[in-house]
Amino acid sequence: MAQLRIALAQTNPAVGDLAANTDRLVEWTRRAADRGAHLVVFPEMFLTGYPVEDLVLRTSFVEASVAAVEEAARRLQEAGLGEIPVVAGYVDRARLAPRVGQPKGSPLDAAALLYRGRVVTRTAKHHLPNYGVFDEYRYFVRGDRLPIFRLHGVDVAIAVCEDLWQEGGPVAVVARAGAGLLVVPNASPYEKEKDDVRLALVARRAREAGCALAYVNQVGGQDELVFDGDSLVVSASGEPIARATRFREELLVTDLELPEGEGEPGTFPVDAADGTEITVERLELSGRPLEAYEPEPPPVAEPLDDTAEVYSALVLAVRDYVAKNGFRSVILGLSGGIDSALTATIASDAIGPDRVHAVLMPSRYSSDHSLSDARELVDRQGINARTVPIADIVSGFEKEVELSGIAAENLQARVRGMILMGLSNEHGHLVLTTGNKSELATGYSTLYGDSAGGFAPIKDVLKTLVWDLSRWRNAQAGRSGELLHGFAVPPIPENSIEKEPSAELRPDQRDTDSLPDYAILDRLLGDYVEKDMGSAELIAAGHDPALVTRVIRLVDLAEYKRRQYPPGPKITPKNFGRDRRLPITNRWRETTP
Amino acid sequence: MAQLRIALAQTNPAVGDLAANTDRLVEWTRRAADRGAHLVVFPEMFLTGYPVEDLVLRTSFVEASVAAVEEAARRLQEAGLGEIPVVAGYVDRARLAPRVGQPKGSPLDAAALLYRGRVVTRTAKHHLPNYGVFDEYRYFVRGDRLPIFRLHGVDVAIAVCEDLWQEGGPVAVVARAGAGLLVVPNASPYEKEKDDVRLALVARRAREAGCALAYVNQVGGQDELVFDGDSLVVSASGEPIARATRFREELLVTDLELPEGEGEPGTFPVDAADGTEITVERLELSGRPLEAYEPEPPPVAEPLDDTAEVYSALVLAVRDYVAKNGFRSVILGLSGGIDSALTATIASDAIGPDRVHAVLMPSRYSSDHSLSDARELVDRQGINARTVPIADIVSGFEKEVELSGIAAENLQARVRGMILMGLSNEHGHLVLTTGNKSELATGYSTLYGDSAGGFAPIKDVLKTLVWDLSRWRNAQAGRSGELLHGFAVPPIPENSIEKEPSAELRPDQRDTDSLPDYAILDRLLGDYVEKDMGSAELIAAGHDPALVTRVIRLVDLAEYKRRQYPPGPKITPKNFGRDRRLPITNRWRETTP
Repeated sequence: MAQLRIALAQTNPAVGDLAANTDRLVEWTRRAADRGAHLVVFPEMFLTGYPVEDLVLRTSFVEASVAAVEEAARRLQEAGLGEIPVVAGYVDRARLAPRVGQPKGSPLDAAALLYRGRVVTRTAKHHLPNYGVFDEYRYFVRGDRLPIFRLHGVDVAIAVCEDLWQEGGPVAVVARAGAGLLVVPNASPYEKEKDDVRLALVARRAREAGCALAYVNQVGGQDELVFDGDSLVVSASGEPIARATRFREELLVTDLELPEGEGEPGTFPVDAADGTEITVERLELSGRPLEAYEPEPPPVAEPLDDTAEVYSALVLAVRDYVAKNGFRSVILGLSGGIDSALTATIASDAIGPDRVHAVLMPSRYSSDHSLSDARELVDRQGINARTVPIADIVSGFEKEVELSGIAAENLQARVRGMILMGLSNEHGHLVLTTGNKSELATGYSTLYGDSAGGFAPIKDVLKTLVWDLSRWRNAQAGRSGELLHGFAVPPIPENSIEKEPSAELRPDQRDTDSLPDYAILDRLLGDYVEKDMGSAELIAAGHDPALVTRVIRLVDLAEYKRRQYPPGPKITPKNFGRDRRLPITNRWRETTP
Repeated sequence: MAQLRIALAQTNPAVGDLAANTDRLVEWTRRAADRGAHLVVFPEMFLTGYPVEDLVLRTSFVEASVAAVEEAARRLQEAGLGEIPVVAGYVDRARLAPRVGQPKGSPLDAAALLYRGRVVTRTAKHHLPNYGVFDEYRYFVRGDRLPIFRLHGVDVAIAVCEDLWQEGGPVAVVARAGAGLLVVPNASPYEKEKDDVRLALVARRAREAGCALAYVNQVGGQDELVFDGDSLVVSASGEPIARATRFREELLVTDLELPEGEGEPGTFPVDAADGTEITVERLELSGRPLEAYEPEPPPVAEPLDDTAEVYSALVLAVRDYVAKNGFRSVILGLSGGIDSALTATIASDAIGPDRVHAVLMPSRYSSDHSLSDARELVDRQGINARTVPIADIVSGFEKEVELSGIAAENLQARVRGMILMGLSNEHGHLVLTTGNKSELATGYSTLYGDSAGGFAPIKDVLKTLVWDLSRWRNAQAGRSGELLHGFAVPPIPENSIEKEPSAELRPDQRDTDSLPDYAILDRLLGDYVEKDMGSAELIAAGHDPALVTRVIRLVDLAEYKRRQYPPGPKITPKNFGRDRRLPITNRWRETTP
C-alpha cells in the first residue's frame, strides 16, 4: 500500500475569465501545497468556467483556453508549485476532420495534468449529456483517451463528470486497466436532494472501477444554475471517507492509503463496453511510494436538511448573480406579502441588508397591513426603503387611456415595474422580481410589470415552499454564517407569513378567488411541470381531472406569454438574439488584439 | 422510359395541430388527384409541423403523431384517394435500447408512404443538423433505412431534408442502389439569398444520385423562422424542370419521363460512405409503366429580386405569427420615423390596414414633423389611429421619482410601451415592436419600453435595409398581390424615408450623436453578428479598430441586457421556463383524455 494526500479544490470560477481563473488555480494550489497535498484536483472546465454555451463555438475563445492551460502550467512552475501535479478542466479542440453533426472546430470538455511547468497529458469527457439543462452534443465531441498516471507509486486515472452518470465508458475502462484512484472533475448543478443521489452514484462507480474515487464539484451560482459543491471521496468499496461543506468554497484535503500500481508506461486500447473503444495512456510521474507519514483525520461535513439546502442555494444564487454581473446593490418592491418578504430576506443574507433597497408602492387597493407589514420588515432587517405611492400615476394613465378588468390590474403592476426599473437605471441597482413558481407557472404575473427585472430569486419555489422557507429562516434568528446574516430577531414579520395571500390589484382580491388551495395546486404543478407527466398520468396519479385540464391550460398559456418577448422573423444566417446562446454571467470579451 | 405526374404540396402546417394538418393532407391530396397526379409529396414533419422543439420529448405527443399517420392513411382511403401514394413527414419513434446521449424515447424525424389505407413503409432523416437554429441531436435519433418503391415502373427513393445538405448517407445510397426519382420532404428555413444555394445543391445531389430529384419545402412563418417554399424539380443531370412560387402555398405539378426500375423487392444493406450503413428496402406498388399521355408544361416561377424576397419574408412572418397565435389585429406606436413606418406598412400588407391600429404618442421632445409624418402615413394607408400624448403621464412619474439622463429617456419609452400593452390587454391586439437590427444590436432600445411587445417584424433588418425596403415598397404602389396590399399611392411618406433618424428622447437628439454612419455600422454588424467574425478578423477585413472595439462592446452589452429577463435559480429538475423549449406558435394541447 502507498499513501497519498489529495486536495479537492471546490471552487467558484468566473465563466469566460481565463486570467482570473488561472490566478485562482495558482492560489488554491498554493493552499494545497501549504497543507502538504501531493495532488490537487480542480472542477470540470475550471479555467473557462461552466457552462460556457455558445462561447465554445468561437474560435478565438477555444484558442485562448488552450493557451491558458499551457500558461497555467508555467505559472505553477514559476510560483514554485511545479512539483505538485494538478488536474484542471478547460476547453480543448480535437484534431478531427469535419463530420456530420459535429460542432464547429470539434471542442472538447477537457482536463489536463499539469506538472513541472508542462501539460503532461490531456483527456476529455467521453459521455456528453444532452438532457435537461445540458446540450453538449451541440458543443462538444467525445473524448476517447483515459490517462492513468503513477504518483508516489499509486495509479491515478482521470474521468470527467458525466462519465460517472452513464454506463460503460471510462469507469468500465478503469475497471479493466486497473488503478488505485479515480479522480473526477465535475460541474454538476444543484437540484433538490441531489446529494443523496450523488453519494449513491459515486459509491457504485467506485465499486465498479474497483478503486477509490475522488469527486470534486464546482460551487457557486451561474445564471440560473447553482453548483453546490458537495465534493467527496469514497473508498474502493464505496464507503464515504471525506465530504466537503456544500454551497461554499473549500479545499477538501484527504489522506488515502491506496494499492501500488503495477502496469508499465505505454498506450493500449480497451473496449469501453458502450460500443466504443478508449485508449489508455499509462505514464509515470514518480514510481516510489512515499515514506510513511501520520495521516490527518478526514473532514466530513454535516448534511443539510432539505429546507436549509434550498435556502442556501437561493442565497448563493443571488449573491453570485449580483457579484458576477458587476452589481453592488439590489432593489425590489416590498408589498407586505410573503413573496417579497422572503425575497428581501434572501437578498439581505446574500449581500447584506445595507445593499438591499426596498420600494413600498401602495395603490388605492392596498390594505393597511400591507404597508405596516412591509415597514416592519424594513425595521427588523435594517434595509434601505422608500415609499412611492402609485395612485396618482395610475390616474394619470387612466386619464389618457381607458382600461378595465385585467388591463387595469396589469397597469398597476407595470407602473410599479417602471418605478423599479427607473430607479435601477438611475442608481445602478439590480432589480429583483418577487414572483414564486406557483403564480408564475399559472400566469398570475404581469408581463413588463412584476416580472420586469434582472433576477428572480424564488421563480423556482412553489408557494408552499415559500412559506416553509420563511418559517425555517425565522427559526434561524440569532444564528449567523456564510449564508445567513446575523439577525437577532426573526427577519420576516409573522403576519406576512400567516395572512391570506392577495395580489391587491382590485378591491378584496384573494388568490383563492382564482386558484385552488396552494397545497393542492403545488402538488399538481410538481407533477406537471417538474415531473413532466401528461394529462393521463396526472389523473392516474389521483389529481382531480377538471383541475388537471384547467391547470394545464393555465400553465401552457403562461408559458406562451413568457416566450412572447419579441422573436421576429429571421432573414439572415445569424441574428443577434436566439442564435447566440451565451451565459448571462460571462466575462469573456472579444477585444481588439 | 416511364411517365409520372408528381405533385409537390408546398404547404403551411400548424405546429402541434395534428388534426388540422391531417385535414390539410386530405384536401391537398384531393387537389393533386384532380390534377391527375400519380404521387403526392408533402414537406418534412408535415403532420406535426416543424420545428416542434421539446414537444418531441413528450411521450403523449409522439404517440399522437404515430397514431395520426395511421389515421391519415385511413382518411385518404375513405376519401377515395387511397390509390394515390402520398409521402408525408411526421414524428415516429425508433425501437432502440436507451443509449448514451440519445434523446428520451428515441424520436425520429420520419416520413411515411401512405397507400390504399395503410402505411406501406417508413423512413427517417439520417443526417441531423445541429448548427445555427437547429438542435436535432437534442431531439432525434438517426434514421438508417432508405425505401425505394416502384410506382408505374419507376423506382422512387425517399430522403429527408438535411440528407441533401451533407456528404454521404441517403444520396450516396441512392447512387449505389439505383432509382429513377428521389423525393425529398423539407422544412428548410429562409435566409437571404438561400434560393441560389438551394438550386445549386439540389442540382449537385441529383447528379450524384444519378436520378431526377423532387424537393418540396414547407412555406409560412413559424415563430422567428420563415419557410419560403421554393419547391423544385431537377433532372438527373441537374437541369431545373419546375419551380414553385416562393412565400405562398402551391401545388407544384410536374410531368416527368423517367427510366424504368430494375431491382427485385427485398431489403439489403448499403455502405452509406459516411461511416454508417443504410438498409435499402425495395418494394413494388405498381410495376408497369402508364399508357403514354400528353405531359403538361412544367410551371417555373419568376425569381424574386433580393429586396422583394426580404419584404415577402417579413410580410409572411407577420401574417402567420398573428394568425397562428390567434390574434385578429395588431397595434404599434407610430413615431413618424422610418422604422415604425415600415413596420406599419408590413402589417398592412400582412393582414390589411383595417386590422392595423397605430398610436401616436408625442412627448415634449417630439418635433412637428413627427406627428405630421405619422398622420400622413395613417391617411395614405387608412389604418386605425389614435393620439395619446405622454407628457402629463411622464410628469406624473417625475413628481414621485427623480430620474435623469438615460433613466429619464427610458421612462418615456416605457410609458409608451405601457400604453401599447394596456390597449393590447384591453382590446386583444398583438403589440408589434418597431426596432431595427442596427439599434437593437447596439443596445439603442429600452427594456420594457420600445422592446415591449409580442413580435418584432424588423428585428433582423439592418437600418440601411430598412431604407431599401421602404423605397422598394413605395415603388410597388399601384400593384397588389398576395403579399402586397393594393395601395394606389406610395404607402410610406417620403419625408419619413429621407429625414435624419432620431429617437427624440431628448432635445435635438440625432442617431449620429452616438452611432457612426449607418452604412459603416451596418457593414461591421454584418461581419460581427451575422458572420460571427472575431475582432482580429474584423480588423483584417478593413474595419476601423477603434470602432470594432466600441461596437463589440455595445453588441455584447446589449445582448446581455436582452437576456436579463429573469432567469433565477434552479432548484428542481424542471422549472417552467428555460427547461421547456416549446414553439411559441404551437397548437398541441395536453388535454384530458
